[in-house]
Amino acid sequence: MTFLTDIEIAKKNTMKPITEVAEKLGIQSDSLDMYGKYKAKLDIDELERLKDQPNGKLILVTAITPTTAGEGKTTMSVGLADALNKQGEKVVVALREPSLGPVFGMKGGAAGGGYAQVVPMEDINLHFTGDFHAIGAANNLLAALIDNHIFHGNLLDIDSRRITWKRVVDMNDRQLRHIVDGLNGRTNGVPREDGYDITVASEIMAILCLADGLEDLKTRIKRVVIGYSRTGKQVTAGELKAEGAMTALLKDAIRPNIVQTLEHTPAIIHGGPFANIAHGCNSVIATRTALKYADYVVTEAGFGADLGAEKFIDIKCRNANLKPDAVVLVATIRALKLHGGVKKQQLSEENNEAVEAGLPNMLKHISNMRDVFGLPLVVSINKFPTDTQAEIDIVLKACQEINVPAVLSDVWSKGGEGGLEMADVVKKLVNEENNFRFAYESEDTIEEKLHKLVTKVYGGDGVEYSAEAKKEMKVLTENGYGHLPLCVAKTQYSFSDNKNLLCSPEGFTLTIKNLKVSAGAGFIVALTGAIMTMPGLPKVPASENIDVDEAGEITGLF
Amino acid sequence: MTFLTDIEIAKKNTMKPITEVAEKLGIQSDSLDMYGKYKAKLDIDELERLKDQPNGKLILVTAITPTTAGEGKTTMSVGLADALNKQGEKVVVALREPSLGPVFGMKGGAAGGGYAQVVPMEDINLHFTGDFHAIGAANNLLAALIDNHIFHGNLLDIDSRRITWKRVVDMNDRQLRHIVDGLNGRTNGVPREDGYDITVASEIMAILCLADGLEDLKTRIKRVVIGYSRTGKQVTAGELKAEGAMTALLKDAIRPNIVQTLEHTPAIIHGGPFANIAHGCNSVIATRTALKYADYVVTEAGFGADLGAEKFIDIKCRNANLKPDAVVLVATIRALKLHGGVKKQQLSEENNEAVEAGLPNMLKHISNMRDVFGLPLVVSINKFPTDTQAEIDIVLKACQEINVPAVLSDVWSKGGEGGLEMADVVKKLVNEENNFRFAYESEDTIEEKLHKLVTKVYGGDGVEYSAEAKKEMKVLTENGYGHLPLCVAKTQYSFSDNKNLLCSPEGFTLTIKNLKVSAGAGFIVALTGAIMTMPGLPKVPASENIDVDEAGEITGLF
Repeated sequence: MTFLTDIEIAKKNTMKPITEVAEKLGIQSDSLDMYGKYKAKLDIDELERLKDQPNGKLILVTAITPTTAGEGKTTMSVGLADALNKQGEKVVVALREPSLGPVFGMKGGAAGGGYAQVVPMEDINLHFTGDFHAIGAANNLLAALIDNHIFHGNLLDIDSRRITWKRVVDMNDRQLRHIVDGLNGRTNGVPREDGYDITVASEIMAILCLADGLEDLKTRIKRVVIGYSRTGKQVTAGELKAEGAMTALLKDAIRPNIVQTLEHTPAIIHGGPFANIAHGCNSVIATRTALKYADYVVTEAGFGADLGAEKFIDIKCRNANLKPDAVVLVATIRALKLHGGVKKQQLSEENNEAVEAGLPNMLKHISNMRDVFGLPLVVSINKFPTDTQAEIDIVLKACQEINVPAVLSDVWSKGGEGGLEMADVVKKLVNEENNFRFAYESEDTIEEKLHKLVTKVYGGDGVEYSAEAKKEMKVLTENGYGHLPLCVAKTQYSFSDNKNLLCSPEGFTLTIKNLKVSAGAGFIVALTGAIMTMPGLPKVPASENIDVDEAGEITGLF
Repeated sequence: MTFLTDIEIAKKNTMKPITEVAEKLGIQSDSLDMYGKYKAKLDIDELERLKDQPNGKLILVTAITPTTAGEGKTTMSVGLADALNKQGEKVVVALREPSLGPVFGMKGGAAGGGYAQVVPMEDINLHFTGDFHAIGAANNLLAALIDNHIFHGNLLDIDSRRITWKRVVDMNDRQLRHIVDGLNGRTNGVPREDGYDITVASEIMAILCLADGLEDLKTRIKRVVIGYSRTGKQVTAGELKAEGAMTALLKDAIRPNIVQTLEHTPAIIHGGPFANIAHGCNSVIATRTALKYADYVVTEAGFGADLGAEKFIDIKCRNANLKPDAVVLVATIRALKLHGGVKKQQLSEENNEAVEAGLPNMLKHISNMRDVFGLPLVVSINKFPTDTQAEIDIVLKACQEINVPAVLSDVWSKGGEGGLEMADVVKKLVNEENNFRFAYESEDTIEEKLHKLVTKVYGGDGVEYSAEAKKEMKVLTENGYGHLPLCVAKTQYSFSDNKNLLCSPEGFTLTIKNLKVSAGAGFIVALTGAIMTMPGLPKVPASENIDVDEAGEITGLF
């Protein structure tokens, strides 16, 4: 058996015109703006037009604490949607847009994998419909306006040592993490320390994903905090009169994109904020629109369920008044073995004891979804060729014992066919009793929110704060941000803030190093350490293998 | 009489679906990739499919030495095409794409003006079809690969003090002109001096505009010189294995864009390199494709004819084996008065003596087009409301005396109707005797080329070289670049390299400060001084007035 790469599989596939795919959802071609034959943007006013339609069922795909290779949430989301499509259901898979920068690093593409992919994968992985470039331009216009304001007299008295707004580029470019700009004399700016993030880390990305329309987008941009005056006052984008032009730059980026899976299931792919310093979910507009079009909407959230699902619920659902109807928790035998103490290099070898020893990680995530958030769930084992039946049986049995449905899914090599059982279970789950609730309430103090998250979701004992974090907590509360939801930026590899504490650690304390408001997005970021917001390239970057021929056919994307 | 702004006029207009506009040229909708309803990209293989079609007539619109407000070349190009369209001719106007950055500065849009515009103007002025963002990404991928190479051991021994490849962004951001990056310790790069250009100044832009397909694009990118090794050897993008991934990023950007004028004339808008450090013309692929579709192709080149038309001929036509059939030289009464010694503030007042005194500027440009380059030409006076009949008559008479056709055009306020007489003349001119030739031959030495340009085209006496330029001339010749055409980077406001020498200066010497090869684009840039490749924003940026409403309608673009 020889394996094809993702791009080889994608290219063997024949896409349908996107108009035809959209028709399945009752979308008229008039409501589409085509970007080529296989990508389109939805009209911004579709939501208004459909407002009286009932919502479909919202299914969240999340995962246990992942290995560095990831658990295959996107692949599983696509496969589940394909399975539902195969069963004749009206379904949409609603995903995040991949970031361009990592494509040239180690990661390759991010549009599902194997026979559960969204296509055209090379376009989706490169510029797609230009949304991220638009976000970058809006972000960088604000940066240029800040420095231009200082250059022309600094009426707002901006403290150039306390500007928190960074420039962005959609590239893995470590050289730009820390820079000094405005050099070379009087006509070329005012020297200051500065730095770049990758575009997906921009607050504009988070804002676009939480806004419910252009007016809301503009209002959110207006309240973005760009830094502080020399007297310590917050300075906003609104004070620089930036929100109109920035929103104009985003007028198309805010419209959801529609593409298809290999099996022609409609896929709405829109937005893709970081999952640590931001909430890691696709856009509210996309999810809402999908719920109007389809009976089943399958969506995903970044990282493991302690981060992704928690933020999906406590930030996105709270913000947009959404309610998930079921959760699919993706687990892999490999990850369970890792949590059971096996070294990365030996994950391919059968090890029943390790699978058993790793189960507490899965069980804690199950308990979070079911008991903390009150949601019906199914465990979906994402099959790898190296998994043995004995290993799989251990997981199935563990779920059976606590009365949680679990299925083996093989969507990577079989597409929708490999997810039919999962689809059957999901269709039952969405009609089961649902006691959806948040992990904390808006009116809780910042300290109470963090305490609830750590004790209820992470399984730790409590929270410690640095002196800086304590001070900032006070300032944020005084400035009226205390009611905002929290966005914890911590490692995705552990329930705790220490990436080496695998499985289901207990007795730990989460240390908050600092707090920061994303006033436009509408959450407080709680930082447990330095978060890398600008990746670098490896010694041999993936870009070296990427090529394109005279006809525009791309090779070397994974 | 109240004047509407450009965007107000554009919005009152009802566009036709771009498929309908393309049909006029016999373009099947299958050969189009739509970007919304009113923009599309042509298939990359259209040129191959049409290769046996005869070429239409190529008409170059250029201008006398301009005022800072510009002479209205784009407006005139659009108006002439609209006039030809009105007369039932098969015509395309082939223009450059506007840069995004200046839209937020002072300049406003760049898509023609008044009733001679291309639409949708707000899209064309903002992200359009994403070409410039793609060029920026390709440029910045190369930059990231350079620094990543140094970071991971620097096998090519790149001298970080002699890296000539800059990062780019499509934003007026003076703060980025001179930076130090790679700061903050061992894991964050290697500190060095660096800087940003605006995207249109990227060599990738010039390359895209001169390439004849994806293979050629890749070959050109491969030979881009990014800097020097510590032993003084040139280092190329090819040595960094960057060309495949960079070309993949440009696979759609290389495809020409089709839109329409207010009068539904097909407009192909593609590429837009700087007109000083690059050649300032739209893409070769766009021009060639347009010539296959249409009987008349109206195109423009940047700045005055000494720069724009000269580079159009000596760089673009030479590179692509194109031959212009006629030249339209745009003149304004205001510019002639400026050359005649009137101050900028008084250009609106009638001044026959000044018009007369400014004529030598126009006459020198006429002589260049007719005698140096051997092309039939017409002078088109771009009418302004403040022009008097007496002033206009002076110009018409001067042309009559030397047997050059001249017409008054009023396309700004009347659209194609205001250019009908110009269209009549142009249709005659394209069948007149044409002794097209270059200003210099490829086999001339760099010194001979520059001497011919200065004495034949600029009207100066000769060339002086700095010590640095002399040294570089020797090195470039030794490295085998001596056969490349020249791209002189000098002020657009004078035939000389001194912007204060108006009208038709004589007896001056051009001083070459330095020379630089753009090996991918295939020309040698001769620098007469510091060229600003990153503009700044004014104290009150235009962005402050730009806004967008809930429906995505933009206001405040000029």
